[in-house]
Amino acid sequence: MILDGKVVAKNVEETVKMRMEEFNKKYSIKPVFKTLMVGNDPASEIYARSKIKNMRKFGIDAEIIQMDSSISTEDLISKIDELNVDKNVHSIMVEMPLPKHIDRERVIRKIDPVKDTDGQNPFNLGLLLSGDESHVPSTPMAVIKMLEYYKIELKGTDVCIINRTQVVGKPLAMLFLNRDSTVTVCHSKTKDLNEKTLKSDIIVVAVGKPKFLIDNMVRENSTVIDVGINSIDNKIVGDADFESISKKASISPVPGGVGAVTTMLITLQVIENAFREIQ
Amino acid sequence: MILDGKVVAKNVEETVKMRMEEFNKKYSIKPVFKTLMVGNDPASEIYARSKIKNMRKFGIDAEIIQMDSSISTEDLISKIDELNVDKNVHSIMVEMPLPKHIDRERVIRKIDPVKDTDGQNPFNLGLLLSGDESHVPSTPMAVIKMLEYYKIELKGTDVCIINRTQVVGKPLAMLFLNRDSTVTVCHSKTKDLNEKTLKSDIIVVAVGKPKFLIDNMVRENSTVIDVGINSIDNKIVGDADFESISKKASISPVPGGVGAVTTMLITLQVIENAFREIQ
Repeated sequence: MILDGKVVAKNVEETVKMRMEEFNKKYSIKPVFKTLMVGNDPASEIYARSKIKNMRKFGIDAEIIQMDSSISTEDLISKIDELNVDKNVHSIMVEMPLPKHIDRERVIRKIDPVKDTDGQNPFNLGLLLSGDESHVPSTPMAVIKMLEYYKIELKGTDVCIINRTQVVGKPLAMLFLNRDSTVTVCHSKTKDLNEKTLKSDIIVVAVGKPKFLIDNMVRENSTVIDVGINSIDNKIVGDADFESISKKASISPVPGGVGAVTTMLITLQVIENAFREIQ
Repeated sequence: MILDGKVVAKNVEETVKMRMEEFNKKYSIKPVFKTLMVGNDPASEIYARSKIKNMRKFGIDAEIIQMDSSISTEDLISKIDELNVDKNVHSIMVEMPLPKHIDRERVIRKIDPVKDTDGQNPFNLGLLLSGDESHVPSTPMAVIKMLEYYKIELKGTDVCIINRTQVVGKPLAMLFLNRDSTVTVCHSKTKDLNEKTLKSDIIVVAVGKPKFLIDNMVRENSTVIDVGINSIDNKIVGDADFESISKKASISPVPGGVGAVTTMLITLQVIENAFREIQ
């Protein structure tokens, strides 16, 4: 089976529309989203624009705030502070990657947890660890949505996550644990990775290497979610060898997989944040 | 090999003494610790008293604040607020378990992250998830201290944690990942648990069932850390069958294992919190 991200995104879109309708009935203003973009990373710009475009489609007042690449951590933090206290802003994001001279952790910690769009503030990550999923990073949540939409059993299943970042692997491990999966988190220092993937019902791969996951690492009838995004000869590919794996397992393609769902989940989070912020 | 918690606690005690000396050189006051005890759970009282006693031994001004078991969540939160703003209090804790009518999550969230003694505030759990270990829950940290003291290799090793709570299993998974272990988190819904434990270099068990982990679940020359505390015929035992397992693997006993280290780590955290709070 091919796990089609566009179909799942369409499903999340239904929730977006419904919540937006409720919002419009209740309030006379629009949800307001601001994302801070430092410098001009081209990939990051394309991604931010597509998010903004998607939000506007549903009536969100969304805007990129462009900051010069030479901005200091202090000044970026002041800008976030300004957005934090601004009653007319409901949801905030900071586009990654930030220039090297900026202290990413200090910046992320500054975002008001209630306005945090991508669940990266430590308070929200800690809530997730405690079982509260009100502000979850969008990429891990998109993985779960994919699996749930296609009714892949999570309870009691063995899940192998190949990624241990705070953006993907660690929050995703929490989400799977909340759903009664048994979770193994793997990374570059893991020994006998093949053995672990071969024993898994579900494999999530996010390593940034094309064809990292190949068919002899994957069990018959298991499920693979590919979170990788790699550019080869101007073509976007994931971390899994789609052609060979799709013959024996269910798999999400790249493009057309998790990414599409992520964008729609961010839009939904902006609406939910606006609901909470206005209360 | 027997992993002796008293030996490891002694080692942590050296750090406690050193930091306390530094504290006394720098400041003319004592670190001040307050723990809120709601009701009179006997086990909880014994545990709180032993913590207080240990702290006082090193010159910490430590006190149990006894609250009536009928106190409301609101009133408990007000009390925490009072301690949060009190400049003369550096470190706070709330003893568990709380009476059923109290909203544990709301209470924990209220503790000022800087004064949080057991790293249970979501902000601190989120910091841990992000790789910052400045406020870590004491029990998981004690597990790591045990292994590190006995120079058990963590990097690249396969770790099986049988517990998925926010107090033990989840924070412990983060600590192991920070040290390049490959981590599998198991629980009551895990299938083929034996298979998983048998493949592991290190097993941490915390399920609250005597003899839950038996020798045929454990690989030759692996390491078992027993976090269980069970009372049988007025005798304290862990979750692992110590006698049989100790013949083939390294193991920490109960009592005399993780618990002793935990108490000393809490004392150390109170001093570190005082350093940060006074700054």
